[in-house]
Amino acid sequence: MTTQENEAQAPVVAVVLAAGAGVRFDPQNPKQLVALNGKPIVGWSIEAFENNENVDDIVVVVNDTVHAAVEELVNTAGYGKVRAIIKGGAERSDSTEAALALLEEAGIPENAKLLIHDAVRPFVSQQQINACIDVLNEFTAATVACPSTDTILLTQDLGDRETIKSVPERRHSFRAQTPQAFRFSTIRRAYDKAAGDPDFQPTDDTRVVVDYLPNEPVAIVAGSPMNMKVTTQDDMPLAQAIAQTIAPNDAKEQVRRMFSDALGM
Amino acid sequence: MTTQENEAQAPVVAVVLAAGAGVRFDPQNPKQLVALNGKPIVGWSIEAFENNENVDDIVVVVNDTVHAAVEELVNTAGYGKVRAIIKGGAERSDSTEAALALLEEAGIPENAKLLIHDAVRPFVSQQQINACIDVLNEFTAATVACPSTDTILLTQDLGDRETIKSVPERRHSFRAQTPQAFRFSTIRRAYDKAAGDPDFQPTDDTRVVVDYLPNEPVAIVAGSPMNMKVTTQDDMPLAQAIAQTIAPNDAKEQVRRMFSDALGM
Repeated sequence: MTTQENEAQAPVVAVVLAAGAGVRFDPQNPKQLVALNGKPIVGWSIEAFENNENVDDIVVVVNDTVHAAVEELVNTAGYGKVRAIIKGGAERSDSTEAALALLEEAGIPENAKLLIHDAVRPFVSQQQINACIDVLNEFTAATVACPSTDTILLTQDLGDRETIKSVPERRHSFRAQTPQAFRFSTIRRAYDKAAGDPDFQPTDDTRVVVDYLPNEPVAIVAGSPMNMKVTTQDDMPLAQAIAQTIAPNDAKEQVRRMFSDALGM
Repeated sequence: MTTQENEAQAPVVAVVLAAGAGVRFDPQNPKQLVALNGKPIVGWSIEAFENNENVDDIVVVVNDTVHAAVEELVNTAGYGKVRAIIKGGAERSDSTEAALALLEEAGIPENAKLLIHDAVRPFVSQQQINACIDVLNEFTAATVACPSTDTILLTQDLGDRETIKSVPERRHSFRAQTPQAFRFSTIRRAYDKAAGDPDFQPTDDTRVVVDYLPNEPVAIVAGSPMNMKVTTQDDMPLAQAIAQTIAPNDAKEQVRRMFSDALGM
């Protein structure tokens, strides 16, 4: 078997993380399920991978609050690539761990390409997904990211006030988005190493690789402001505006379908 | 004279930087002049300081392209605190320098409080302006900033691709906004030191203090996502949405005024 044949067989698995408690949004109203143009945010995210011809399988990680709703959404929408909807953990990294454990148990090959995506980034583009898949032919880890238009400040506590410690150069400051993409063996190895560190508290899978496998370069794939994260209610006007731009006729289309179904057209 | 009397006399001067060429926006259509709810972006910014009872004077820094339009705007709107509209430079720091030189020439006291603001952040709140003024009683430098909800990545060039060098902790990662506030003597001293450094290329006034006066702690004043920066066309939907939220009845109010003027009401 040539390397190329081997490569062609590396399965591409998307892990959609939808287990966040949304404490900064509204715990009573899980942000994953809030509708944009009639479709729940987690539906937008799953669909991006469902519609990508290079993605083979999807694993969705949920919490107890949203489990039933996500299951119904997947069944109703007929997302055929979703192989499992599993329970995550309290922290983001617990949810990634849960997905890694499931995939390992399922016998996923070492060279499989994993795309780990935040469910609350509903507008990831096909181009970004494809770029993640491609870059893993060159690197074992990559993340979608955007140059920061704001200057970034790194701070420290000074008594009762946060003060600035350093200001990295803006041209080298990026805002991490998702998907974050890894060969399975790389992300598995990084998490195994992190498990031995009592101070391990990552907010980001890329950071696990950067911190625990410092010799593996992590590539950057071009992100976009559209690939925004819905974190607080303040983010909703922008999300609504983008949803309208991307799919302005969704509602009309649904009405049209209802009528054509009724008329047997 | 007690310190308190002295403090009460420290003038508060806002510097509104509107000299950006907007190469990431549309050089043919200066973003400073783009209207949000009928008011140019730079008008929103100047008005925030004009309406603040603690701000004494305003200096607006422009480029040749927008000079006449800003002058007309200031005259028409009757922004009475605007003392000067001066020409900036190619870089942001050149524009700050131009304002510092003017203020020095005008004999501004050493303890004056300077609030340097990006014109393209039209939605700065009165609370943020006041917090900047207050914090200068405790610190000699401060900036409005927002905790980053995205993980920040610091990168380096690796051949033809940008790769990640380090991932600072998210709880210590902030996105700088403006105003950035300084005692006049502090920012003057920082810029004087920076002038001797051939590699000086700051994108941010705060960075000048952090880099060249490392022993002066710079405080953080709570920013907000609303205090966004209009950098590219992609930012416009959000800006329009915020303008609508803040002043939904501006257009109606203008029509009402027109009629009441005509009717002598």
